[in-house]
Amino acid sequence: MDINEFKEFGHAAIDFIVEYLETIRDRPVLSSVEPEYLHDLLPSEMPEQPEKWQDIMEDLKNQILPGLTHWQSPHFHAFYPSQSSFPSIVGELLTAGIGVVGFSWICSPAATELEVIVMDWLGKFLNLPSHFLPSGQGNGGGIIQGSASESILVAVLAAREEKVREMKIKRPELTEGEIRSKLVGYGSIHSNSAIEKSGLLAATKMRLLDADETSIMRGETVEKAIQADLAEDLIPYICVTTIGTTGTCAFDNMEEIGPVCKKYSVWMHIDAAYAGAVFCLPEYAHIMKGIEYGDSINFNLHKWMLVNFDCAAMWIKDAGKLTQSFNVERIYLDHKYQGASKAPDYRHWQLALGRRFRSLRVWITFRTYGQQKIREWLRKHISLASLFLEYLATDDRFEATGQSLALAFFRLKGDDTLTRKLLDRINDRKNIYMIPAFYQNKVIIRFVICGLDPVEKDIEYAWNEIKTVADELLAENEAAEKLQIKLSENAENEIETVKDKVNFVTENISQSFSICEQEKTVH
Amino acid sequence: MDINEFKEFGHAAIDFIVEYLETIRDRPVLSSVEPEYLHDLLPSEMPEQPEKWQDIMEDLKNQILPGLTHWQSPHFHAFYPSQSSFPSIVGELLTAGIGVVGFSWICSPAATELEVIVMDWLGKFLNLPSHFLPSGQGNGGGIIQGSASESILVAVLAAREEKVREMKIKRPELTEGEIRSKLVGYGSIHSNSAIEKSGLLAATKMRLLDADETSIMRGETVEKAIQADLAEDLIPYICVTTIGTTGTCAFDNMEEIGPVCKKYSVWMHIDAAYAGAVFCLPEYAHIMKGIEYGDSINFNLHKWMLVNFDCAAMWIKDAGKLTQSFNVERIYLDHKYQGASKAPDYRHWQLALGRRFRSLRVWITFRTYGQQKIREWLRKHISLASLFLEYLATDDRFEATGQSLALAFFRLKGDDTLTRKLLDRINDRKNIYMIPAFYQNKVIIRFVICGLDPVEKDIEYAWNEIKTVADELLAENEAAEKLQIKLSENAENEIETVKDKVNFVTENISQSFSICEQEKTVH
Repeated sequence: MDINEFKEFGHAAIDFIVEYLETIRDRPVLSSVEPEYLHDLLPSEMPEQPEKWQDIMEDLKNQILPGLTHWQSPHFHAFYPSQSSFPSIVGELLTAGIGVVGFSWICSPAATELEVIVMDWLGKFLNLPSHFLPSGQGNGGGIIQGSASESILVAVLAAREEKVREMKIKRPELTEGEIRSKLVGYGSIHSNSAIEKSGLLAATKMRLLDADETSIMRGETVEKAIQADLAEDLIPYICVTTIGTTGTCAFDNMEEIGPVCKKYSVWMHIDAAYAGAVFCLPEYAHIMKGIEYGDSINFNLHKWMLVNFDCAAMWIKDAGKLTQSFNVERIYLDHKYQGASKAPDYRHWQLALGRRFRSLRVWITFRTYGQQKIREWLRKHISLASLFLEYLATDDRFEATGQSLALAFFRLKGDDTLTRKLLDRINDRKNIYMIPAFYQNKVIIRFVICGLDPVEKDIEYAWNEIKTVADELLAENEAAEKLQIKLSENAENEIETVKDKVNFVTENISQSFSICEQEKTVH
Repeated sequence: MDINEFKEFGHAAIDFIVEYLETIRDRPVLSSVEPEYLHDLLPSEMPEQPEKWQDIMEDLKNQILPGLTHWQSPHFHAFYPSQSSFPSIVGELLTAGIGVVGFSWICSPAATELEVIVMDWLGKFLNLPSHFLPSGQGNGGGIIQGSASESILVAVLAAREEKVREMKIKRPELTEGEIRSKLVGYGSIHSNSAIEKSGLLAATKMRLLDADETSIMRGETVEKAIQADLAEDLIPYICVTTIGTTGTCAFDNMEEIGPVCKKYSVWMHIDAAYAGAVFCLPEYAHIMKGIEYGDSINFNLHKWMLVNFDCAAMWIKDAGKLTQSFNVERIYLDHKYQGASKAPDYRHWQLALGRRFRSLRVWITFRTYGQQKIREWLRKHISLASLFLEYLATDDRFEATGQSLALAFFRLKGDDTLTRKLLDRINDRKNIYMIPAFYQNKVIIRFVICGLDPVEKDIEYAWNEIKTVADELLAENEAAEKLQIKLSENAENEIETVKDKVNFVTENISQSFSICEQEKTVH
């Protein structure tokens, strides 16, 4: 492919994206394909000869698109959003076109410096404590990781190494292996699967603690767990608080948990993957109470701040704890500026060596929107979730079990089977996509505002879809119940008949017996 | 930004990339900025109001580009390439525009299936043993990770858990903590920093073993290390063989190491991040000897197969060993097809939950080039490295220390200081970029063929640059040596003068003494 063909292909791709996104509402949000559908369509080997981009685009439309779940559709209400935006898409294109890698400052100074700057912008915008900011007084700093899981794993591993270093001094009688085997971390039972997985990967215990009836992990619970583990001679080293659980977007109580962590010298990490976005809204300042106790925090711009996947912001109070844990030197990685504070070698802050120039998209997106538009946009999402609950309130067959930010959750009154059936049927129709969770020991359906540009009519659409399926399901259910009643009425009649027959037989026998006795007596 | 502005911005971005890549040779490959240059140019807070994309593009050109190291320039000869290509750039754009996330099959069936298919295509193209292929008989499979480091870490963690499971049965007298503290892994002293780091992250010992005089790790060395560790009651669990070391692209001897790993039940991982590309060339089949012993292998398409960063292919012989180690279930992640063999939930194969739709770029790139063009393109790179050595051979001040694939390495005759000085001066001029390594205990300079489209004249350019700096440096050196000689000649004359004086004084004293003695005698 020469540069002219690239130009043609590139422009065609822009036009394709415009068309795809403009018509995204017309496609079923979930695909109808069965596993292995694509294996039947594609050849089993890489082609020997070059193919034309025009043919590839046709196959993209005809073979790939039908197998996609359309995350940018406003009819997608599952998980949390995987946000995108127009400027971010162009930013990704520019990043690919420029094609630099930024594992150390010298590898591309602008890549590192722009990341420091946009993480400082974002930290300020989110009202984070200044100890997290690159421009703050201490040793804090921000980095863009690939995902919340990666950020959490980095925090867990850094906390693990920090605790091992501490214990080697405090308890010299223990071998390093003994220290490691005694380490224990904590998170809520409602925390993301990434917390449990980080424990597996770090090879330490990771206890998932109970939450209160509103799915919030409380300080007392954490303290009791720590005390119990200390009594067993275990070594608590990290507690991950979740600000916005996956199930119902509940907020763990950092104001209670923070002091507990401090008291027992336990690293507090804050997983605010989704909800961190609203730290920029003054009306949600209460969610942030206790954030000052955090040693590290993560928030996904690709979830809810208009930057396409992958873009997971992470801040750490003392970046030295990362570099102390992950530093590996090589002659081929040396350069004369290494160690400079505003020009960090980010490779020491992450698991991998290579890294994408992710800050470019962030910079382009932040400048295109500006603080005010981002705030408006978040508030719009939240109000759309409220609008959904208004629709729900008009129908007393439903229970509106709650709303947190742009996530509403609900169920059908009655037992869990009904709600599960409703969800399965809705997803089978593929017009909207939602997933289940548990709340107060009951199955609920999560309704999250997602997609590139959700508007009021999308909520109406979703409500009509839910209502239609509910009508159908409940009507069937009613019919089934009636049938059940009829069946049991029939059964009762049957039993009466049998009883009558038994009575008749019994009476006859009894009479026969009497007659026989009388005859005996007579004879 | 509305969809019309997106269209304008998108088309402008395509044109910008065309211009950037067409003129990339005109820019110094290394930037002239000093640390914190960008902090002085950019505001300290995110803008409050939206800005125009035209202004952002201007700032990209004037503020960001001057701070980049141009990895796509053919004057970049450092590290290894971070490959890109026209179809891959468009593929990245399409991926961002479509904006799906594929952590499980249901999340976007096509994303998962296309990944299975292109990893199968690639595995066949690279002549990998069929046990690695999704289409093979066993439980093998391929996945695209973000980087070689991540792939290696996944292998290390999977091998660690596998060995722990094995030892819990074989040595029930040991606690899990004791087993873990006894684990030890191996890699070459010349292996990438990622191997040492994976040991840190996995919290196990990771020994870097000596290599032979050509930087190759040998079977005997590995066996001796394993035996020594077994004698100390340690538990060997993984050996990472490097096929293409970072320094000089040396190939560890898998044919020797493989049987050793098998004998001691040690997982063999193969890090072929760069050199894996030539597995598709029959003339390099000898490099692959012993590959059949591998339990897992990684190769970076973003290094040397035309797919832009990040795109790190990894295959594993028994994918069950990944899912056994990393599986974490949640109600919100359930779906009815989970567990299907050709529709794997890739989240169990990697560290994170979220994942990009990377296979789309691979598919587009492979189809645009086809097998034949990719082979031609690899051979061209290798021949350019040979061409460089031809230039070098014309100048007997240089030692051509070696070539492996598209990496040539050399030094100035004489001591290391000279070679180091040469490299520093070349990089200070910023016209070409190379980095040092060690070979046979001497400092060498690595010259790697990189960039989007390197051609013969780029090699001539680089050679002229190296020669010019060498001329200058060696001329200065000669002048300095002459000065040194003059200085030492002067010093010798000085010493002679002093000696004369001393002789004179000594003689005088001696004479005086004689006179005195004579006078004594006389008196």
